[in-house]
Order: sequence, then structure tokens, then C-alpha cells
Amino acid sequence: MVQIASVFSMRHFFVLSLALNVSFILRSVFEREQGLNWFGFESEKERITQRTRLSVSSSHSSITTLAEAQDSGERIINLDHGDPTMYEKYWQQMGDKTTVVIPGWQSMSYFSDISNICWFLEPEFAKQVVRLHKVVGNAVTDGRHIVVGTGSSQLYLAALFALSPSDASEPISVVSQAPYYSSYPSMTDCLKSGLYKWAGEAHNFSKEGPYIELVTSPNNPDGTARHSVVNRNKGTLLHDLAYYWPQYTPISSPADHELMLFTVSKSTGHAGMRIGWAIVKDKEVAKRMTKFVELNTIGVSKDSQIRAAKVLKAISDTYEHVDDSEVGETFFDFSYHNMAERWKLLREAVEHSGMFSLPKFPPAFCTFFNQVSEPRPAFAWLKCEKDIEDCETFLRGHKILTRGGKHFGVGPKYVRISMIDRDENFIRFVKRLSTIRI
Amino acid sequence: MVQIASVFSMRHFFVLSLALNVSFILRSVFEREQGLNWFGFESEKERITQRTRLSVSSSHSSITTLAEAQDSGERIINLDHGDPTMYEKYWQQMGDKTTVVIPGWQSMSYFSDISNICWFLEPEFAKQVVRLHKVVGNAVTDGRHIVVGTGSSQLYLAALFALSPSDASEPISVVSQAPYYSSYPSMTDCLKSGLYKWAGEAHNFSKEGPYIELVTSPNNPDGTARHSVVNRNKGTLLHDLAYYWPQYTPISSPADHELMLFTVSKSTGHAGMRIGWAIVKDKEVAKRMTKFVELNTIGVSKDSQIRAAKVLKAISDTYEHVDDSEVGETFFDFSYHNMAERWKLLREAVEHSGMFSLPKFPPAFCTFFNQVSEPRPAFAWLKCEKDIEDCETFLRGHKILTRGGKHFGVGPKYVRISMIDRDENFIRFVKRLSTIRI
Repeated sequence: MVQIASVFSMRHFFVLSLALNVSFILRSVFEREQGLNWFGFESEKERITQRTRLSVSSSHSSITTLAEAQDSGERIINLDHGDPTMYEKYWQQMGDKTTVVIPGWQSMSYFSDISNICWFLEPEFAKQVVRLHKVVGNAVTDGRHIVVGTGSSQLYLAALFALSPSDASEPISVVSQAPYYSSYPSMTDCLKSGLYKWAGEAHNFSKEGPYIELVTSPNNPDGTARHSVVNRNKGTLLHDLAYYWPQYTPISSPADHELMLFTVSKSTGHAGMRIGWAIVKDKEVAKRMTKFVELNTIGVSKDSQIRAAKVLKAISDTYEHVDDSEVGETFFDFSYHNMAERWKLLREAVEHSGMFSLPKFPPAFCTFFNQVSEPRPAFAWLKCEKDIEDCETFLRGHKILTRGGKHFGVGPKYVRISMIDRDENFIRFVKRLSTIRI
Repeated sequence: MVQIASVFSMRHFFVLSLALNVSFILRSVFEREQGLNWFGFESEKERITQRTRLSVSSSHSSITTLAEAQDSGERIINLDHGDPTMYEKYWQQMGDKTTVVIPGWQSMSYFSDISNICWFLEPEFAKQVVRLHKVVGNAVTDGRHIVVGTGSSQLYLAALFALSPSDASEPISVVSQAPYYSSYPSMTDCLKSGLYKWAGEAHNFSKEGPYIELVTSPNNPDGTARHSVVNRNKGTLLHDLAYYWPQYTPISSPADHELMLFTVSKSTGHAGMRIGWAIVKDKEVAKRMTKFVELNTIGVSKDSQIRAAKVLKAISDTYEHVDDSEVGETFFDFSYHNMAERWKLLREAVEHSGMFSLPKFPPAFCTFFNQVSEPRPAFAWLKCEKDIEDCETFLRGHKILTRGGKHFGVGPKYVRISMIDRDENFIRFVKRLSTIRI
């Protein structure tokens, strides 16, 4: 009886806490949105349709939609992909500041700057990339080459092409410490290239000779800070730093590696632009990466480069006080607070359910925020406890779609869950997760 | 003496004809441009810089620039690439009609339409693609799948991936009748894929078993209408129809092949967008092509798809009289007349020089213009006559940059020359070509 009472009071406490948190978010939304739409609890397709109706929505209807939302447990919650729709809200707040206007006769040529190794790189985009890295302090850019890509995916492939010996008798091994990003094996092997080949878990790699080690830090899916683990000579490192931004992790120092990949998809949330960039130390590698993009897609959308430049500029402007009169909430403040709030809600839900566990992250000093804080990764790496062997299937039974551990080179007790979807989807998820029992 | 007098009068006549043509173009430019910039005779880099100054230019300065232009023979004329800058003028005339305005919070998600096989295809872009094909009558779209790509280059690779057997013991052969597009061999072989392999000239292909035959029609570089030449069973056809538009060739009937590739680069002139599309009969092929684009770049720039949709819509609108009050010159009238004028000037220059020859094209009935006309390809396939063995090197000696025949799988007596560069570059080229003697 004592045990039951204790459980009851804990659940009671949790529901209260969750209600407080929801009301906090609602208020914050109300203050922030200033009349812009709050997307309802709809399917992915409905959401896409709704987005086109944005201009006719009102704060009243959006708030009502959220307040009325009761999770019956029937609607599918899809957090399989890392679709960064959480960020829509911030850019709505910014109004016209990042609106681009492109006349029909602009940007028609293939060429952007033929004096640059990367001849399809828009100079304004390159300038804003360098500027933002200086503002944030997360990467060294001085004396480096910038190569733009159609998302960082294309640059991953460009890097493999550039780093592989062209005259080798067999493909070079590409390794990474598990759990690793689920798409890397299939991206690497889909064309059965004679230049490179996925060789899986870096810890198990024992082959002699050259190899490429992929280091994703913070890591997708588990959010941990990563370093190379093979550490043999003849190894080349490729750093995927898509998540090395202050909303996700404390910035310890400017990253200073041979080849670093970044993307707007996870930094500003503009996945639909398909814009990534590589910061490359070696000139010949930059040339070969450029060659790959040329052979693959003859350059990268100028329209998206122009738009990305404007978005990056808006972020830097708020920090460099270029236009004090119009500075609202800064981008990294918004995203830091959102991520922190979401991790808090998730940890409470996990604790309440008692069925799951989450990684713990050591706090560290962040040079950008000038304070100590814990990492708040873009994905939650959730483990099913008790006797649940297949966490993805278990959660699918509760209509929560996630990506199971086997896709990341580990066991099925783990799943990856997107933490950067829209608020209402995320809130519905933590509500449902907290109530899960065997 | 009689011979010299005859030569002199022919040259005299030619100069007169050329002057008349130039004055015709000048008048037409003056009437068309209505105050917009006419780019001067500058290097590629200067041109790019100048484009950014467009808003401050005037018709006076542009006309002056052209009229003052004297070809000293010193400036490099680069017609190596098929950069479609000829079309800038048309879209300038159209003013704001194809201007896009994209707010910062739009198109942030990876997804465009998850009910579509090609989940990253913007519905409005797909709609305008189908509509334009119906207006022009150059391709069957009913019951077909549309797959969007980062230019048609990406779709060429996606098609190879989709059409290659995944379980074959050796890569499938990819063949094409020479001369073929110079980038196809390197695009096909750059990753040393185990799925497919460039096997060169289709006429020489004698290997048993499956193969992919690439048919480019009208052909790049020589502008001829093409059909498959191998004609064995176990062959799969891939049609590159980038130039099957009424400005380049008479439209005989809607193309009706298994897999057809198109691109805005050559249809509307928007190469910087990097937007192409495939029209695909087989659902499974469309699925595999989509998978390739997913693994390659996780979709295609939404910004460019939105912009391309607007451009295609503007063209169809003028033909379907959606907005009669504002209809100016139609797109295909503009581009047909420009191409016809350029081919006339080029043939006159070639005749005047006596050093070169050009292919002759049989006239045919065009269902779009409802008249008989000759093809006017986007590239001239020029042959050096007399004893000149290496035409590319010979022209480079005259500071005219072209692409030599060996890149296209044939001999060095041929070069490919872009016919779709800006007017002033093209006029300078024909002026110089006409004066070339051994």
C-alpha cells in the first residue's frame, strides 16, 4: 500500500509539473508568435498543406488548437526524421528580415566566381559562413577553402571522392565509431564504388593501410562529443560538425580539423534549402571536392545560396548589433531555451514512465554563452529498459515512429528520436511517452 | 585579277550583310530592352560583377557599349561552356512577372509531398512541368511519374542507378552514339561504380547481355535528331531531351519514351537554379531514382523548385492567355528568333572565312510553331577544313575558347561552340571568326 501511494504521488507530481511546463510554453508561444500560425496536431501531409495557409491564420485559432489538443494515443507521432521544423517559429518572429526577393533574370549563369576554386560558390554566402563561424567561435576559417554543397550529404560524398586514392587496387575503408548516422553506410555503398567502401565500426577496424575515419561530433544519434578512435598513421579524418552549434552543445573552442562539414539544415533549420558547406585545409582536396560536385550536379542552387546567406547574415547581425533598433530575440537564445526546455520535459517523461533511460551528458563551459551548461542534442538516444528487446517496435505499438538502433550499427534496445520537430508534435510525444507502461 | 575582284566583292558583300545584321540586332535590342542593361564586352569575371550593378545601368550606356565595341582580337571569347546567358534579356523584359519572394520561415522542412513517390517534389513545380509540356507538345506526361533533380546531371546518375541491375556480377555497359556529351563518360566513371560503366561509342558495342543506351536528341554537341542505334533486346533506353524545345528544333510530336530527362538550364536558361526533371513510365524506376537523390543530396532545393515553377508558369501563361493585358513577346518567339538570327550570322561568318564548315539540318514541320523550319541547335559543331588537324588549338590561337572533338568521342577536327551566350560575346565571336585565314 505504501508503495502504491508513493507511485501515485509521484505520478501526481509529474502531471502537475508537465501541466506547468505546457502552460509555460503556451505563454511563451503567445508572446512570441504575435499573430502567426501555430500548426495544429495534424499529419505530416496536413501540416504541409496548412503551411500554405499561413497568411490567413490567427493567434486565436493557433492557441485554441494547442489548448484543445488531447492525446488520445491514436494519432501517429513521427519523430523518425530529424526534420528541423522547430525553427519555423523563430523565423516567423523575424518577419521580413530574412525574406529574399529574386528577379527572374538573376542568377541564370552556371558560374558564381570563376576566380574561386569552388567556382559555383556565391561570394556573399561564403562571406556570411565565415562571419557566422567567427561570431559563434565554433570553427577556424582563416586560410581555409569553403566548398558549398547540396546539403552536407553531397559534401560527405565529395569528401570521400577527394580523400580516396584514385589509383588504389582496392577501395579505401571508411569507418566510424558506432552508433553512427544511419545513412552513412548506404550513402557510401549505394554505387558500389571502387574508390571507397563502408567498413563499419571503427573500434573493430584492424586492416592495414589507408582508411578514412568519420568523426561526427556531437554525434548523431547519441549526442556525445567524439574524437577519432583508430589513431593509426595512414588514416584521414573527416569531421561532420553539423551539430556543433551552441543550441546543441557547449562550444569549447573553434574546431580546427583538416576537413569539416556543416549544414543549414541543423544550424538554422532550413533543411528545404539543401545547403551545406565544407571547410577544407588542403587546396587539392578542395579542388577534388569541387570536381565531384561539378560531375554530380554541376554546382549548387544559387537561389538557396542567396537565401542561406541572408539567414546567416540575420543571425550574425543580431550579435554584432548591426541594427540595434530591430534586434529581437537572438537565434541561439531562442534555440538554446527551446532545446533546454524540451530536454527537461523529456527527462521528466522518461522518469515518470520508468520504462526508458537516456544518456547523461557532462556539463562543460560554453565560450559562446559564457557559462557552464549540459549538451542538449538534436536527437534523443532512448533506451528501452525492462525486458523490451526491440524498442522501435515497442514504440510503434504506441504509434510513436522512431529509428531503431540497428540502423546505427548497434542493438535494437535503442531508438533515435528527433528533438527538433514542431512544439505540438513534441509535446504530444512527451505526454504519450510519460504514460507508457508495459 | 578577275578572281581577286570576285573575292573582294564577296567580302564586301559579307561585311555589308554583317553590318546590317548587327544594326538589326541593335534595333531589336533597343526596342526590347526598355532601359535594362546590355552587358558589355567583358571577361566572364567582369560580367559576373557587372550583373550585380544591373539596377544602376541605363539603355544609353548599354547601347553605347555595344556600338563602341571593336574586336581587336585580343579579348578572350569563351564559348566552351553552354552557359545560357542569352536568355537573361528575355527575363529582364518580363520585369517582375517571375520575381519570387520567399519568407525566411518558408520551405524549412525536408518534405514537399509525402504522398508522392518523389517526396521532395514541390507540387506546384510538378504541375507547371506537366502544363508546359502540354502547351509545347514535346512530351507525354499522362500517367507518368515526375522526379525532380539538382539539374538533369543528377537525374542522369539517378537513372543509371535505377536502371542498373543491383545483383549483377559486373557493371552494366552504358553506350551512346558519338559524338556524345563530353561529361557523360567522366560522370559515369568518376566513382568507379560496380553498377555501371561507360562503354563508349554505341556503334562499336558488341558485348552480349544487358546495356543502357543513352540517346540525346537533339544531340549535344552536333544538334542532330537521334534514335537508338544498338537495338538489341536486353537494352534499356535513356533519353536526354534537354534540347527538345521549339527554339532549338522543330517539335515533331510529343516524345513518348520510358525515361526522359529535361532541365531548366537549356529550356528557360536558368542554369544557376540547378533544376531538372525526369518523366518516368515505370513506377519502380521512379522509386529507385528518388532513392538515389535521397542518398545523394536528401532532396532538391525547394527555393529553386519554387522559382522554376514561377518561370515555367509565366511561359505557359503567355500561351494560354491567362493575363492578356500583360502579354509581351512570348518566350519561344524570342528564343526562336534569337537562335535563327545567330545561326544566320554564324553561317555567313563561316562562309566568309572559308576555313570551316557546319552541319546542314533538314527542315521539318514544327507542330508548335505550325510551320516548317530548320533546327537551330544550342551548340555549333564546327569543323576546321583545309589542313587544320586540331581545331580547338587553332581557335585558341585566335583567343576563341571552344571544346574539341576528342572530348565528345570523335576527332580533333571538330569543336563545339556555345550558341546561347550573351549577344555581345556571340557577335564578337562571329566577327572574329569571319576574318580568320590561315
